[in-house]
Amino acid sequence: MSMILVRTIPEIRRDIAAARERDMSIGLVPTMGALHEGHGALLRRAREENSYAVATIFVNPTQFDRPEDLEKYPRNLEADMAFCERIGVDAVFAPDAREMYPDQFLTSVAVAGISSRLEGEFRPGHFRGVATVVAKLFQIIPADRAYFGEKDAQQLAVIQKMVADLNIPIAIVPVATVREPDGVAMSSRNQRLTPDDRRIAPRLYQALCEAGRLIRSGSRSAAEVKLGALAILASSPEIRVEYLEIVDPTFHVLETVTGEVRIAAAVWLGQVRLIDNLKV
Amino acid sequence: MSMILVRTIPEIRRDIAAARERDMSIGLVPTMGALHEGHGALLRRAREENSYAVATIFVNPTQFDRPEDLEKYPRNLEADMAFCERIGVDAVFAPDAREMYPDQFLTSVAVAGISSRLEGEFRPGHFRGVATVVAKLFQIIPADRAYFGEKDAQQLAVIQKMVADLNIPIAIVPVATVREPDGVAMSSRNQRLTPDDRRIAPRLYQALCEAGRLIRSGSRSAAEVKLGALAILASSPEIRVEYLEIVDPTFHVLETVTGEVRIAAAVWLGQVRLIDNLKV
Repeated sequence: MSMILVRTIPEIRRDIAAARERDMSIGLVPTMGALHEGHGALLRRAREENSYAVATIFVNPTQFDRPEDLEKYPRNLEADMAFCERIGVDAVFAPDAREMYPDQFLTSVAVAGISSRLEGEFRPGHFRGVATVVAKLFQIIPADRAYFGEKDAQQLAVIQKMVADLNIPIAIVPVATVREPDGVAMSSRNQRLTPDDRRIAPRLYQALCEAGRLIRSGSRSAAEVKLGALAILASSPEIRVEYLEIVDPTFHVLETVTGEVRIAAAVWLGQVRLIDNLKV
Repeated sequence: MSMILVRTIPEIRRDIAAARERDMSIGLVPTMGALHEGHGALLRRAREENSYAVATIFVNPTQFDRPEDLEKYPRNLEADMAFCERIGVDAVFAPDAREMYPDQFLTSVAVAGISSRLEGEFRPGHFRGVATVVAKLFQIIPADRAYFGEKDAQQLAVIQKMVADLNIPIAIVPVATVREPDGVAMSSRNQRLTPDDRRIAPRLYQALCEAGRLIRSGSRSAAEVKLGALAILASSPEIRVEYLEIVDPTFHVLETVTGEVRIAAAVWLGQVRLIDNLKV
């Protein structure tokens, strides 16, 4: 069976219902397109663990806090379709904005606390937009499993909390970050880096690794760990740090390192904002 | 098959899944218990239109804006169970508050605009609580149809909007208000009225009817219509009016009566707050 491209909600509902009728399990990978090997890992996992794999491609306007970011977000449906087809995806759901947000759209889903910190602080409304569109996709495509990358670890935590709180019957499967050979986390935004900035970009992952090394070697002071990591970023004056923090699993900023922690950071390189994180 | 009482989310999920396996259609009636003939109309409708009828009984703490109202809300599970059994309900889902809101509950569903007017203005947070608990119930019990009374017309409008916006695949069925012989809308709160206040209570419906009569006889000025209705309420000094408005289907307050409108009002009689409405 070859891959289908679906543009409307009633049509994808029919396809999913038909798959369910045949007792197929459904794996869902929500994306904003501009697919790369990070998405590839999600899609392959969905392909392997389910009998029917669906990718959604939707550049969700409500999760962009800056209009220029939405405008510049890369879009290439043809390449994305070829990418999905190579992996063996069964259906691509690529609605337009009016299909997802008709006139007079009024409803929002919010996850308090976790949504207001780090990414939420620097991108107001971002996680409300994410939670709302994912809640919609989960109703449109009642999958057995949905796959999200750990690169967007805070987004993953917001979605896991929403699914638990609202009793949405879909298993959320986290998938490890895929990195370039030089350590840079795969991201659609990387293609907007200038060649010079791309050469500097590995500093972000190196800084996270240094923080991880300090923690594993016994440092319990977040301030000390951050100092070591920030020193690496400071060695490239082109890098502007938005935040670098040690956080617990619900993204509370820690002063003392205890239990399972994550080092999360956002930096600017020119006009491009990059995020990354590392679990320790 | 006799009616079952279910206390936990995994258990009701199993029951619904088993009914689905047998290709049964599911009708859902969410209630806060203290069942009366208004609920009876919803439950009978669910019973008639579906092969499996579920009532939920949950006094949802997050939709009460005043602690004393939550505390005084009538509870009688035994009587409610007998009521449901007589109608032929298949399952009653009556979770406790911790089953629905475990520690660290953070997620909310909000419907902007409509939730901030009339009831929303006088009961801040009320419709957020309603939308959130109904969203949860719709995930826990994936019904074909869910039944709501027109007595709580604004609540009905909030839920219809939420379901449309979030693409929840459940049909919302409105059911007409059931009234006592003297016109008082059935409500669990009526039993808290003193005998004297109960004798005055029909004034509310009479005022709505007078407004309806003025509109049908050609009045297009909301101010004029309200004046006529308020005169009836004013004849009983025990009645304190919170609001009485002519609204459109999305509960925008109108100054000029056009198209399908509703007269919606909330009044206090002693310690009891009563609401009612009439479509014209």
